[in-house]
Amino acid sequence: MMSTPLNLFNMFDYSQHMYGDKWIVTRTPTGVHRYQYRDFGQRVRQLSAALRSLGVQPGDRVGTLAWNDFRHLEVYFAVPLMGAVLHTINLRLSPDHIRYIINHAEDRVLIVDEGLLPLMDTLKDQLPTVEHLIILGPDPDPGQSPIKPAHSYEALVNGADPSMAAYDPDWPEDQPLGMCYTSATTGNPKGVVYSHRGIFLHSMAMGLANTAALSESDTVMPIVPMFHVNAWGLPFAAIWFGANIVMPGLAPTPRDLVHLMATEGVTVSAGVPTVWLGVAKVLEENPTPLSLRMALCGGSAAPPALIQTFEETFGVPFVHAYGMTETSPLATFSRLKSTLADRPAAERLAVRATQGLLVPGLFMRLVRDGQDIPWDGESMGELWLRGPWIADEYYHDDRTRESFEGGWLKTGDVATINPEGYVHLVDRTKDLVKSGGEWISSVDVENALMAHPAIFEAAVVGVPHPKWDERPLAFVVLKDRRTATKEELLEHLAKIFPKWWLPDDILFLPEIPKTSVGKFMKRTLRDQYRDYLTPQDG
Amino acid sequence: MMSTPLNLFNMFDYSQHMYGDKWIVTRTPTGVHRYQYRDFGQRVRQLSAALRSLGVQPGDRVGTLAWNDFRHLEVYFAVPLMGAVLHTINLRLSPDHIRYIINHAEDRVLIVDEGLLPLMDTLKDQLPTVEHLIILGPDPDPGQSPIKPAHSYEALVNGADPSMAAYDPDWPEDQPLGMCYTSATTGNPKGVVYSHRGIFLHSMAMGLANTAALSESDTVMPIVPMFHVNAWGLPFAAIWFGANIVMPGLAPTPRDLVHLMATEGVTVSAGVPTVWLGVAKVLEENPTPLSLRMALCGGSAAPPALIQTFEETFGVPFVHAYGMTETSPLATFSRLKSTLADRPAAERLAVRATQGLLVPGLFMRLVRDGQDIPWDGESMGELWLRGPWIADEYYHDDRTRESFEGGWLKTGDVATINPEGYVHLVDRTKDLVKSGGEWISSVDVENALMAHPAIFEAAVVGVPHPKWDERPLAFVVLKDRRTATKEELLEHLAKIFPKWWLPDDILFLPEIPKTSVGKFMKRTLRDQYRDYLTPQDG
Repeated sequence: MMSTPLNLFNMFDYSQHMYGDKWIVTRTPTGVHRYQYRDFGQRVRQLSAALRSLGVQPGDRVGTLAWNDFRHLEVYFAVPLMGAVLHTINLRLSPDHIRYIINHAEDRVLIVDEGLLPLMDTLKDQLPTVEHLIILGPDPDPGQSPIKPAHSYEALVNGADPSMAAYDPDWPEDQPLGMCYTSATTGNPKGVVYSHRGIFLHSMAMGLANTAALSESDTVMPIVPMFHVNAWGLPFAAIWFGANIVMPGLAPTPRDLVHLMATEGVTVSAGVPTVWLGVAKVLEENPTPLSLRMALCGGSAAPPALIQTFEETFGVPFVHAYGMTETSPLATFSRLKSTLADRPAAERLAVRATQGLLVPGLFMRLVRDGQDIPWDGESMGELWLRGPWIADEYYHDDRTRESFEGGWLKTGDVATINPEGYVHLVDRTKDLVKSGGEWISSVDVENALMAHPAIFEAAVVGVPHPKWDERPLAFVVLKDRRTATKEELLEHLAKIFPKWWLPDDILFLPEIPKTSVGKFMKRTLRDQYRDYLTPQDG
Repeated sequence: MMSTPLNLFNMFDYSQHMYGDKWIVTRTPTGVHRYQYRDFGQRVRQLSAALRSLGVQPGDRVGTLAWNDFRHLEVYFAVPLMGAVLHTINLRLSPDHIRYIINHAEDRVLIVDEGLLPLMDTLKDQLPTVEHLIILGPDPDPGQSPIKPAHSYEALVNGADPSMAAYDPDWPEDQPLGMCYTSATTGNPKGVVYSHRGIFLHSMAMGLANTAALSESDTVMPIVPMFHVNAWGLPFAAIWFGANIVMPGLAPTPRDLVHLMATEGVTVSAGVPTVWLGVAKVLEENPTPLSLRMALCGGSAAPPALIQTFEETFGVPFVHAYGMTETSPLATFSRLKSTLADRPAAERLAVRATQGLLVPGLFMRLVRDGQDIPWDGESMGELWLRGPWIADEYYHDDRTRESFEGGWLKTGDVATINPEGYVHLVDRTKDLVKSGGEWISSVDVENALMAHPAIFEAAVVGVPHPKWDERPLAFVVLKDRRTATKEELLEHLAKIFPKWWLPDDILFLPEIPKTSVGKFMKRTLRDQYRDYLTPQDG
């Protein structure tokens, strides 16, 4: 067989030849911008030519700080097609982390939304590798840029000759296409590099009927930001397979999203649970006919009630997917197998609420103490992943050895896998409570506590215990004007869990400490209460 | 990203873990045999272990001469999974060609249907590389074999320990998985070798929503024989994606096929036009409710009327695909783009009757005199293909240089490509009539002649001409009790084609010479009439 490489050129060239008349639509502050693939392709080539004239070479990193729009999409293709590396930067991180990321990746060029120039101002003179700043927007003034030299994106693109793009159809598939940094529990973000081969295969996986079945008959709207693991890979797959694309632009409200879905005939959209909660609220208040065939949800687990609302009230299939920056990200996808179609509704919902089945092309293991454990739906182990779109290291980072072992990625997620192959995440490894050699899922106990009518929030952590190594401690916040006693809550839990799962104590707090993105800071609780169950010698 | 190889182990291991309870059903002379993937997997491992104990090594060729059943399917997986090469042999070829193929491939083991022992008898003592014969069937008697040593397949499998299969998950993707010989116009058949990578990617392509969309909710029946380009790759893709599989067994009649479709709930089936003509006849005589969601048709072009019958009368989407032994075989696939859905019915049918759109992952060119020509739906050129499941050579064969150039396969098919990307085959390069630097499609003129009420068969060939290089000559066979004059037929053609397309003469024959598989022997006509238009000097 031919050794034709699996690269982005293959996908782009195909898309341009087969689907030149498909549409890319962007919500902008001044209305809706729309153009066809063939115009997109022309501008992609122009941008590559312009970057080349700025001195960008194959292998160079080009950073982006931008929302979801057509210009960012052009950058997505123009940079890797010329052999350079698309480095999407999470603009919601702290300026310190953004500075670290740009310097660690050694970005030579930054392409940023006009609205982010104030952020650039805080970083100026601290980005030694950055040689050019390119400003996105309809008509930005490079004179306003705190970093020099600066260029207007539109001026660069319009002034370039597309025939100078000089793409190499045989660009090797193992070369880097892009990179993305993921937040670490402690310390600086960690970089993951995506190869052409990885993105090609990941895109193919998104077109499979067994997974997202992206096709030319779809209109795809990625709500997930393009700085989050390549908007879950949707832009690459959607363009390859000829779907229309709708870009929600800067800071869309749930009402904006529903409006776009309705007016543009969106069939597939993707976002985190909070986005879908917002969309559900709008749809409940203003029932709107949609052509949505799939609401794709990832980032964290969606409550079963949300799945139910979408499927039963709105008639929209709501699909869970799971992955992480290290997995490109699609790793599991929660479709109901045809063989389970006649199970009772509650069972079907329970299956749909899992993280789903492994995506074809990947391998998984469930590992505990270095041993594979059974896929019985009950045994808990760390989920390990392997496959052609799974990272094998962090970019220039010693923390690689903590997360990769023997050719596998240790996800840090604790899961069960049932005999059908459905993965159900139960906890993060570091949040598990290890009691007497057994594992207790802090998440399960928290969810049970939060199901109690008096509880607003609950967090469960393991703290050292002289006999059992660790025991669970629970922290709860009561709802306004509600009360509950510790005994009452323990009784509530005892109906659900074995006795040894019950927390050794339940502490009532006015609030649970949280991170900047709203996650419980369990590490703070663990540190603060580390001696709570240990007898003190004085 | 991890360098995890794209090999059959990945597909098999996935399938076994996710879809152990799916079914493989085979029509046998004594009824229907059915078992589940997990039993299939166990026997695959046993067969690998057994072959290993016979001395089969990685890289060794194992030939099969067999119909579509569960045992052949086991061989399909067991041989490549142990690193050996699955060599499927077309049992309809002449014994001379079969002998050539086995010797050219240097098969070490042959696995043959019990019913083919008489054929083996004609070849005995002429197969120096063959060390073992394995006989397929419920309870064959190895004592009856003309080639020794011979083994009962069932005895071998049942006596083997599946844990001795010793598969290598990291088996390199560029290693050969299988091979298949294709008939040549002249001389011996030519061998094509399939790599693990090629089959992996070809299978993925069959799961795409944009193409066949094979999924776990399908029940797939390959009517196309497993000795024809791996039954078009269906067994590999169907097993990977968890579809139920129905095997029609030895020499099914159209009635058998319809019965299997109805009783087993077949959703996807694949065969050549004559098979579908037979199925249509049965369905017309005995309307039968089917769950068929796709009748996949390839091998040669299906008449538009057949497409219409399936779609309008039976409500079954009828899909054209195009490929060849050298292309694994899926190269184009004729789905109607969503953007063409509102075109008039006749136009939609015309699109559906083309060979379709290129499959994602591949490249194509339309070449004439070494130059790319426009995709305007009119300009004719040779179709060139390139991609990871396209062959780059014939196995140990000098004829490689006739068909491969600069990294492309020259298909030998003349086509037009319209601006939407639909490929329409108009002729074989060698059958084109090249007149005054322009090309005339012999197939188009033949079809027009056969549309005349008096014509039973027609063949058009180019013969040398002193002024125009070549000119078309037509040969027609009249229907029983029908007459037509040459002038009448030329008038009929003049309504359809420009004047210079009209044959210089029309000759009436009692029949058109045909090959053993029923194709017109145009070469014979060309040779016989080579001087027909050339003035003779005496």
